[in-house]
Parts: sequence; structure tokens; C-alpha cells
Amino acid sequence: MPESDSKFPEVKGGGSLILAWQIKGKHVLVVGGGEVAAGRILNVLDADALVTVICPFSGLNPEVRHRVTEAQVKHIDRLFEPIDLESLPHPSGEAEKTGPPDMVLVAIDDPDASTQIWKLCKKLRIPANIADVPPECDFYFGSVHRDGPLQIMVSTNGKGPRLAAALRKYIASSLPKGVGNAIERIGVLRKNLRVVAPDASQGPKRMKWMSKVSDQLTWDQMCELTDEDMQNLLKFFDSGKVPSFKDLKAMRAGGDPDELDLFDGSFGFSIGI
Amino acid sequence: MPESDSKFPEVKGGGSLILAWQIKGKHVLVVGGGEVAAGRILNVLDADALVTVICPFSGLNPEVRHRVTEAQVKHIDRLFEPIDLESLPHPSGEAEKTGPPDMVLVAIDDPDASTQIWKLCKKLRIPANIADVPPECDFYFGSVHRDGPLQIMVSTNGKGPRLAAALRKYIASSLPKGVGNAIERIGVLRKNLRVVAPDASQGPKRMKWMSKVSDQLTWDQMCELTDEDMQNLLKFFDSGKVPSFKDLKAMRAGGDPDELDLFDGSFGFSIGI
Repeated sequence: MPESDSKFPEVKGGGSLILAWQIKGKHVLVVGGGEVAAGRILNVLDADALVTVICPFSGLNPEVRHRVTEAQVKHIDRLFEPIDLESLPHPSGEAEKTGPPDMVLVAIDDPDASTQIWKLCKKLRIPANIADVPPECDFYFGSVHRDGPLQIMVSTNGKGPRLAAALRKYIASSLPKGVGNAIERIGVLRKNLRVVAPDASQGPKRMKWMSKVSDQLTWDQMCELTDEDMQNLLKFFDSGKVPSFKDLKAMRAGGDPDELDLFDGSFGFSIGI
Repeated sequence: MPESDSKFPEVKGGGSLILAWQIKGKHVLVVGGGEVAAGRILNVLDADALVTVICPFSGLNPEVRHRVTEAQVKHIDRLFEPIDLESLPHPSGEAEKTGPPDMVLVAIDDPDASTQIWKLCKKLRIPANIADVPPECDFYFGSVHRDGPLQIMVSTNGKGPRLAAALRKYIASSLPKGVGNAIERIGVLRKNLRVVAPDASQGPKRMKWMSKVSDQLTWDQMCELTDEDMQNLLKFFDSGKVPSFKDLKAMRAGGDPDELDLFDGSFGFSIGI
């Protein structure tokens, strides 16, 4: 292969394009109300989508019925009709948003009806997934581990869905404890930093300092950070330096940071890079 | 929260919908040819997309120029024009596929032009990502680890992109060695099984036996499987049993499987579930 001599990454092929789809406030239509539909509904609600479920009430499984009762989804109590893809009211109630949904997920036991919906979606350019019919899917769902703001998705590209789920659990168990919380705190630090140093001109300094924070602390240390530590950390931004975790601990409950040995970012990476 | 009493999973919200997008043979238009564009191009080529890059030749960075020279992408040597979204020739050369691309990725240093492309994409219902402009993105890219058929994507939902990359490396280093290969082999086993037992009526038996294989072997054992082991494993399908890894090893180079103590699937899970 001539390409392997190249200094540029070789194209491997055979993968999926794994994406974090943004469907907050977007309209997702779920056709069907059984177990698979229940899983899909939870998936999209967890990403803050507005959901319409079309399925006769008698076909709703207990979980979907619960989502309907709790008004977590809008329910249309009948079978799907082709016109639904063009004239469905938006769950937000905004009349001007009536029209094709932003995404369609089909989970019904009727291959012919499924194929019909798929074809309509393609005609209208609506991203769609017909459960259990790979050729009628713009995208697949995978096995996702969630811990606060952290999401880890495992895909075996269809080679072993069961292994994907097992590997997701393996990864979850090997992650530093509290890593989701650590990421949340770093997110808060980044936000507070913008309050302390709001100028756009300070952007590069902010970015450099945040990198130093990431580089200075190990995962285990990051997971142990307290609110007080975050406040103390911020005090160092002006100097452009970052205290060590040991120093941060010494500062708890009013310790004096003046004599600390500060990290100036020149020691390379420490978070497993 | 009244919902926490529910027997159904609570909706957490705040996440992305992480999806494995299927763009094999689909047409992806990349506008721009700099470093960010180079990354996007590799992302979509690795998922077997057909790519058109629109960018004046002088704006191509060395990696993109390499992809053009190697004919890995189709190149249009000029600036983007709005009509491109409607009349772009399909990279496959099939005239009937002329028309809106299936996905648009923009990575240019011109916010006004970017916004114009974004609005056109939304009008034409084309999924799009404008680099570095989160509100003008249907989806975000994440930090993805790839090992053969295995893909693991880490997203911090924007809280810490640098932490996402660090965590991806942390996960990669903690995975069983050769896990991508193990998944590939299990995929081959599943395929060969369909040759040995092709009847649709044997589907449930095949699925049950594959589950037993997954449950019987640890990750480390799976990673050590040889081609010979896979052939020997298949011999057990008829009986519905699965040999232990120790027994598989004993069978190498013609060992006798008759006296083996076979796993009947009743001992629960062993791959870290």
C-alpha cells in the first residue's frame, strides 16, 4: 500500500461516523410504543428532544404509558398516517413549527409500513432509523455509558452488539471514580473563569491556563476537587500559574498559598496522556 | 422529584444523542481545505463516505492536497457558491445522483459565508456542521478511539474537550490488549456460523450459542483466540455447548475434545458483566 509511507494518517475505512447529535428542543417522532420504542424515547428525552409518540393506546408498554401520563411526551392515539410527516403539530405548541419532524424513529412490527415510512422520510430528507432494519437506517444507536456530562459510546460496527454492551460495562468499571463529577467541576471552573476574566482579549490566556489545570492534575485528583478547591484555583489565574493538588489541599480552610511551589506548565502532561 | 420513585429509568436530560451515522457511499461536501477540514475529511473517509472538497487550491493544506493527489476526494478548485448545494455532481459519477449532498461540513475562516451556508443547508434539510460555531451545528464531532471494528467515542458535552481527548487515551490504555481483533474474530465466528447453520429456523439457536461464547470467555481469553480455536469452537455448535478456553487450548494441534468438561451456559457471565 503506497499510502503507508505517507506522513499523513492512513484512511482505514469500515467505520461509522460517530456523532453527538444536537436535538435539544428539536421534534422527534417515534412511531410505535413497545419495548424498543421505550428505549428510543428515553434516548432522545435524555438529549432534551421534544417527542411525539404515534401508537394506539392499547399498544403502549408500561414505560411508554408512564412517559405519556407524566406528559414527558406528546401522544397521538392511533396508527401512523403518511400525512403525519408533513402536518404534525410541534410538541412546543408553536403553530409556525408545524411540519416535518427533525428525526423519525420507527419501532413497529410491520415491515411494509416501516418501509413506507422510511421511503417517505428519505423523500422529505428527514433523518430516520427503522429498528432492526439496518438498510433502512441513516444512523444506528450504540451502547452508551452516561455519567453526568460524560458520555462514552461503544460501537462494534455490527460485529457484536452483545460485546459492545459488555465492553461499555468494562469501561465504566475501569474509569476513575467520580470522573463525571470531575468533568462537571472543570466545566464550572471554565465558566467561572469567564466571570473573573471576561475580556475576549484574555481568551488565549484562559485557554492556556485551563490546559495547565488539566495537565497538572491526575484524574484521581480531579475527582477529589471540592468547591473550595475550585475557588482557590481561580485565585491563581492572574499569575498564570497552577498550584499542585498537594498545595490545593494545604490551602483548604484558610491555608497560606504564598509559600507554595507553583507549577508553571513546563513539566508535560500528567493526566495519562 | 416524584419520578425517582418510578420503576422506570428517570430522564436525565442534558446529554447529546450519540449516534453511529451511516455514510458509506453517501456524498459529503467539505467546504474549506485547512487543518480542521483535513480532520473532518479523515473522519468521513474512515466511514467510507464519498467526499467533495470545495476550496481554492492555494488554500489546501498538505494533508488535504495529499488526499486530492491520491484521488481519495474529489476537488473543486474555487470558492463555494450557493448553487453547489443543489447541482453538485455526485463523486460516484452517477448523473442521476446530482443534487444536494447528504452532509455538509464547513471549516472556513469566514463567519458570514459560514452562516450563509448553514442557512441554505437548513432550508434544504441537509445535516450540517459549521466548525467552531456550536449554534450552527446539527451535530458535534467527539474524540473517537478506533481499533479495527471497535469505535469508542468520548463526549463531555462541551464541558472539557481537552479532557475528552485525555479520557479517550486513558480508556484506550485500559482496554484489554487486542480487543479490536477479538471483536473482529467474534464477527467472523458469527459469519461462519451462518455458513454452518444457514437456516433461518436456527436463528434463535445461533443467537443463544453466540451469547454462550461471549459469556464463557473472558476478554483476555477472547483476545488470544487463534484461527484454529475459531474452527474448533464451531464444531461445538450442534451440541449447543461451548468449550472452556482451557479446553480450546488443549484441542490445538489435534488434541481430543471428547473428554472435555463442557460449559452449558448455566454459570452466569464471565466477561465483566
